[in-house]
Amino acid sequence: MNLEICPLVDVPEVSSADDIASVLITALEPLNPRDGDVLVVTHKIVSKAEGAVRTITGDEEEFKRRLVEGESVSIIRRRGELIIAETKHGFVCANAGVDRSNAAPGTMILLPKDPDRSAHRIRLRLQQAFGADLPVIISDTFGRPWRRGLTDIAIGVSGLIAVLDLRGSTDWSGRELEVTEIAVADELAAAADLVMGKADGIPAALVRGYQGPRGDGRGSDLVRPVDEDLFR
Amino acid sequence: MNLEICPLVDVPEVSSADDIASVLITALEPLNPRDGDVLVVTHKIVSKAEGAVRTITGDEEEFKRRLVEGESVSIIRRRGELIIAETKHGFVCANAGVDRSNAAPGTMILLPKDPDRSAHRIRLRLQQAFGADLPVIISDTFGRPWRRGLTDIAIGVSGLIAVLDLRGSTDWSGRELEVTEIAVADELAAAADLVMGKADGIPAALVRGYQGPRGDGRGSDLVRPVDEDLFR
Repeated sequence: MNLEICPLVDVPEVSSADDIASVLITALEPLNPRDGDVLVVTHKIVSKAEGAVRTITGDEEEFKRRLVEGESVSIIRRRGELIIAETKHGFVCANAGVDRSNAAPGTMILLPKDPDRSAHRIRLRLQQAFGADLPVIISDTFGRPWRRGLTDIAIGVSGLIAVLDLRGSTDWSGRELEVTEIAVADELAAAADLVMGKADGIPAALVRGYQGPRGDGRGSDLVRPVDEDLFR
Repeated sequence: MNLEICPLVDVPEVSSADDIASVLITALEPLNPRDGDVLVVTHKIVSKAEGAVRTITGDEEEFKRRLVEGESVSIIRRRGELIIAETKHGFVCANAGVDRSNAAPGTMILLPKDPDRSAHRIRLRLQQAFGADLPVIISDTFGRPWRRGLTDIAIGVSGLIAVLDLRGSTDWSGRELEVTEIAVADELAAAADLVMGKADGIPAALVRGYQGPRGDGRGSDLVRPVDEDLFR
């Protein structure tokens, strides 16, 4: 079956005065959301609505450095102004998710405090509004070691399996698969990013036709436990 | 504009006796490919058609270990049977891309020798067959530090920009974006994987409606130069 990825256009600017679910419901209405459609929302508008925003005071670079350190539980690497840090959620990313792009002037945006909870709250509201269960992914843009460029990944998930476990599945020849865990929530976030564009102000997309399993996946399922990690 | 991702169904098993472009052209015909549609092909069938396959002799684990070492220019990490290695292409991945899943019994599959060239050759043949320019991506499934699960990424590219450079672009407030390079070819590969499924035997997908720039991108554009890399 085909997958269709529909950008949510005409989403207005969001501030802490806004109800993010209402904003998304209004933007979703023209698409007639159906049970199983997956909503991918970039975290920026979620963070803004939740007040995960700080007003810059004093020297901007110094302010940012302190903010990043406050958001971090450990610094993985540091080179010049770039800090690769582990956040309180366990995510490893540049500047612990602190970012100025698409922030209101004079402010910086943080990651949502509990992106899984944010996703879940939005999903419940969508269910009320549309009478349909739409899994929700909250995404962010992360870099990767060894590869140039960034991709969108899932930091919050509600209503679908985030990491698909294929253990026991076999290939066409009957041989057990060596690749056993697929980060489908990250792939959905990446797919959604293709219709958003960082500069275009499209903060969400609906993925229609996804056949992967529903369930109680979480963004934290995508965080590799420290003892399995060879790069910390 | 919406993005549509269409799995290529009914692709037969491929061996070194097959012309991979012909196989793909036959599978694409029902989709009436149009100029700008992006074809994503998993490397496995390309490797098989190009003979990048080895017959196992002697002890299987020992054979694999030697094969992995032969495909590597450096070993980045080793834990038990898992080797994270840099391939001759510069990719950093598990077992230098050597894999048994979906291989014919008694064989192991390697990465194509020059995936960009493989992509380019397929693209030229599609152009002849359909009179349309279809960018081609050859994908593989890679793990990532810090995150559980694997995602598909692009190892070979022809006909589109692989890493989108947004330097100089501004956000809605007029501020220059901090995120400047998007690995769109990797996001296209990830999106395509959502309709393939490792166990379903669907080795390719067509992405329709992608609005990113065409051009002479290459899979090697996605390899981070060693001197920029903090994790080697």
